[in-house]
Amino acid sequence: MFSPKFDELVQRLRILPGVGPKSAQRIALQLLARNRTGAQALAHALNDAVLHIQHCTVCRSLAESDICDICASPQRDQTLLCVVESAADVAAIEHSGGFRGRYFVLGGHLSPLDGIGPDEIGIPLLMSRLKAEPIEELILATNATVEGQATAHYLQAAWQSLSQLESTAVNGRKMPLKITRIAQGVPQGGELEYVDSHTLSQALQYRLTVR
Amino acid sequence: MFSPKFDELVQRLRILPGVGPKSAQRIALQLLARNRTGAQALAHALNDAVLHIQHCTVCRSLAESDICDICASPQRDQTLLCVVESAADVAAIEHSGGFRGRYFVLGGHLSPLDGIGPDEIGIPLLMSRLKAEPIEELILATNATVEGQATAHYLQAAWQSLSQLESTAVNGRKMPLKITRIAQGVPQGGELEYVDSHTLSQALQYRLTVR
Ligand SMILES: [Zn+2]
Ligand SMILES: [Zn+2]
Repeated sequence: MFSPKFDELVQRLRILPGVGPKSAQRIALQLLARNRTGAQALAHALNDAVLHIQHCTVCRSLAESDICDICASPQRDQTLLCVVESAADVAAIEHSGGFRGRYFVLGGHLSPLDGIGPDEIGIPLLMSRLKAEPIEELILATNATVEGQATAHYLQAAWQSLSQLESTAVNGRKMPLKITRIAQGVPQGGELEYVDSHTLSQALQYRLTVR
Repeated sequence: MFSPKFDELVQRLRILPGVGPKSAQRIALQLLARNRTGAQALAHALNDAVLHIQHCTVCRSLAESDICDICASPQRDQTLLCVVESAADVAAIEHSGGFRGRYFVLGGHLSPLDGIGPDEIGIPLLMSRLKAEPIEELILATNATVEGQATAHYLQAAWQSLSQLESTAVNGRKMPLKITRIAQGVPQGGELEYVDSHTLSQALQYRLTVR
């Protein structure tokens, strides 16, 4: 439609999540008709982000410099380390406001069939942090999916075998590390009749004593 | 979150239709985590489109050169001219496959309160085309909205007063031009009980004799 550069734009817009051929054309037309300045600013921001945003060398989250703001902040509790699958999870937890520790971003989960093993999700870096930093609790906040659970189990086992291998003290501090897993259960506002049965059985199994 | 360039990207993504702050962040994270090459290609396509796609000097639709493919094509029926509000309408009609004439894109509708008068929607150019080209039928395909209807009425009146002013023949060809309006009615598959009452009354008023 219209011209090759128009078709090219429509095609490229389809990398955006949820954008099919029809909405890509609609977006292209809207930008060209009503917001050419905005389209150029978006192009600039995309390029700038891709060129300058890399991964934090400490936690593998997103950062413009070698070390991200969270890792660099003296305000964050160095004794708590929360392992998540993606930077999006960091954003979600930060947004919840309920966590003042630091993070480690796996960048995925173990998936042997796809060639994603411990090295690909940064396990060696995580283990060296656990040995070198004054971390007291490791919170496993991988997704509540089969893959996320399997990855959490692997992390726990990996730390156990490492701590046994290196005797009872690593880098001068006492083992064992406390390892926790985020709670699974009925979401806030969730009506039981609409909650899936797996979630419900988990919620029952991990029930809390309230009095 | 993360860095200034990340926040800038999130902000710029919000020019996309239907993208709020949460989905803008989700899109930014997905692009940075999974498709940096695609993000750069999109940036390039956006810039390229803005810099090279202009308006056709004949029909005001989108084109990379002075004259768009439709206006330049000898295959299109020069006796039919369809007036639409936007290039998106050209795309929709082309997609329907039911029209082999040419177009004129107003780029909006009359809106005196917003300072959008006949000059802003290209009426002088349209009138000069009606005088110079072998157009036999002018199809008013502005939107079925109050503004679209008012604009269609204005176009009809503008042509009538021009043709009276310039006597019965303009540029050697006979007046009057046949002027039509696209049909309004119940959409294909529309169930009467869910069709709005205005559409229904229009559909009844413009009913067709079938036998
Ligand atoms: Zn970091
Ligand atoms: Zn044209």
